[in-house]
Amino acid sequence: MNVFLGIDWGGTYIKAGLVDSCGKIIKKKVYSSSQLREKQGFINNLKLLLNDFSSFTPLEISGSKKKRTKLLTGFNIKGIGIGVPGIVDVEKGFIYYLPNIPGWEKYPLQSVLKKKLSLPVFINNDANAFALAESRLGAGKGKKRAIFLTLGTGLGGAIISDGKLLEGNTSANELGHVPINLAGRLCGCGGRGCIETYVGNRYLLSHYKRLKKNKTKVKDVKELFQRGLDGEGEALVVWKEFSHNLGKFLAGMINVFNPQVIIFGGGVSGAFKLFKPLVSKEIEKQVMWPQNLGLKLVRAKLKNAGIIGAALLAKDKLAHSS
Amino acid sequence: MNVFLGIDWGGTYIKAGLVDSCGKIIKKKVYSSSQLREKQGFINNLKLLLNDFSSFTPLEISGSKKKRTKLLTGFNIKGIGIGVPGIVDVEKGFIYYLPNIPGWEKYPLQSVLKKKLSLPVFINNDANAFALAESRLGAGKGKKRAIFLTLGTGLGGAIISDGKLLEGNTSANELGHVPINLAGRLCGCGGRGCIETYVGNRYLLSHYKRLKKNKTKVKDVKELFQRGLDGEGEALVVWKEFSHNLGKFLAGMINVFNPQVIIFGGGVSGAFKLFKPLVSKEIEKQVMWPQNLGLKLVRAKLKNAGIIGAALLAKDKLAHSS
Repeated sequence: MNVFLGIDWGGTYIKAGLVDSCGKIIKKKVYSSSQLREKQGFINNLKLLLNDFSSFTPLEISGSKKKRTKLLTGFNIKGIGIGVPGIVDVEKGFIYYLPNIPGWEKYPLQSVLKKKLSLPVFINNDANAFALAESRLGAGKGKKRAIFLTLGTGLGGAIISDGKLLEGNTSANELGHVPINLAGRLCGCGGRGCIETYVGNRYLLSHYKRLKKNKTKVKDVKELFQRGLDGEGEALVVWKEFSHNLGKFLAGMINVFNPQVIIFGGGVSGAFKLFKPLVSKEIEKQVMWPQNLGLKLVRAKLKNAGIIGAALLAKDKLAHSS
Repeated sequence: MNVFLGIDWGGTYIKAGLVDSCGKIIKKKVYSSSQLREKQGFINNLKLLLNDFSSFTPLEISGSKKKRTKLLTGFNIKGIGIGVPGIVDVEKGFIYYLPNIPGWEKYPLQSVLKKKLSLPVFINNDANAFALAESRLGAGKGKKRAIFLTLGTGLGGAIISDGKLLEGNTSANELGHVPINLAGRLCGCGGRGCIETYVGNRYLLSHYKRLKKNKTKVKDVKELFQRGLDGEGEALVVWKEFSHNLGKFLAGMINVFNPQVIIFGGGVSGAFKLFKPLVSKEIEKQVMWPQNLGLKLVRAKLKNAGIIGAALLAKDKLAHSS
């Protein structure tokens, strides 16, 4: 049976899984990513991991025999997909840079791993991998066109068009860096007025504290969500502005893509119940009819979208090249 | 030889042409569109046109024999593509509405014509047809990813991704209606702050007149361009703001699409020489590196992009369905 190794490379962990061609996870492992920040560690660990996972595959890796399990009998790892937390060149397979992990600039991850692991390797951005999995097997299943958003510290996201991830030479799909305001504040990317600076969780919390004149503490967005649900005035103001900004941005994207579904993932999507009606209303006000006809706003569904999506990226690429 | 009939339905004219499968126009006709505003007139004229064009094709249309020409011997019209000046449903082939031509709301143009003309008919938005032709045979030739803009009264445009037009159930691709400002002015689409309201020629001219305190007359954008070239202060202010707004918008689109080329068409693109360096500079300031790596800004090239693109739409659809 053909399977794919999907790797979800996050800021605090690296999740890896063997995924079958239907997107089902067969075996999973989670590592702390702090020990893997340095390149050699990353590569060696991937080697060990593959070792562990590839028993009974045609691969010859020393030590693999000890770890053979019944479960894996007959599994044949066809390729590896990696969702990288940064901007990559998807064609040549190198990392441009990782905003939160220094030292990986212009690193040819794909070719290095291909040599070390003797398997086809494909890399893409982590949000792109998430989007692919959610659109194909999760909340966007059966839809040809989807917009996927990860609402967290920043705004990640990706576009699914004609059932496929929108693709560039780069990982593209940087939805968080679409400007929505001419005189906007400075964004981490160097631009001004990016949507990310209006909906990221840091902004939400600092905006709330400002409204409260620094007299109340708020732990996290979850608490801010609860205060909104409880009807607290300042919390509601924050969520209303968040929804206004997000809805405005989404209306523009809807006018361009005519998506069937918008999928909300990431920590801030915990407040979906609160912001969904507000965002819908703002979209309705701003959008050009009938680009939003039949559009649904939904929450992400999958538990291991990062792993599954990375595996699907490899599967798609291999199908395309064969 | 297989050919396709491409129809470019403009506000003041309808251009039609027989186009071969390489995108070359074999025969062309231009009509005033005022006489075709009403549905029956449009359909009857299309029948006459086809009659005229389809001599020596397998079609049996009375009167066609008189107009046989040597040129058309052996041409076989495989299908018709129409670039419609409004929003259409590309799947079901009906018109949602034409912003400047009343009376066509929810009209099933595709099925009506298919019946009357006994040929496969495909419709899409006119800017989409332009974009397809320019990207495939004009200024974007050989590029897989392009953004096409028609700068005129409004801002039309379309996205080419993986060599194909970005497609929705609707004609999608409404680039002019991406908002770039939270507190923007009201747009014709009902939204606020759409990029169209910052770069359309009406805005440019009225902005200039305001700067001149209504003391100078300016005929059109061409004159405004000349005054900018001559170094007139107020004209330069207008073109600088235009470029700032357009560059900001484009940077967002570049971050999402990682295009290889941006193609500028339409009347306002006459001032390309003047605004290109300013727009480039603004993109540079706003964009997230390396999404703009290798990007070129160029002017549209083709003379009959509307006809050719409409024919290519039909050709693509027929290839896809066979």
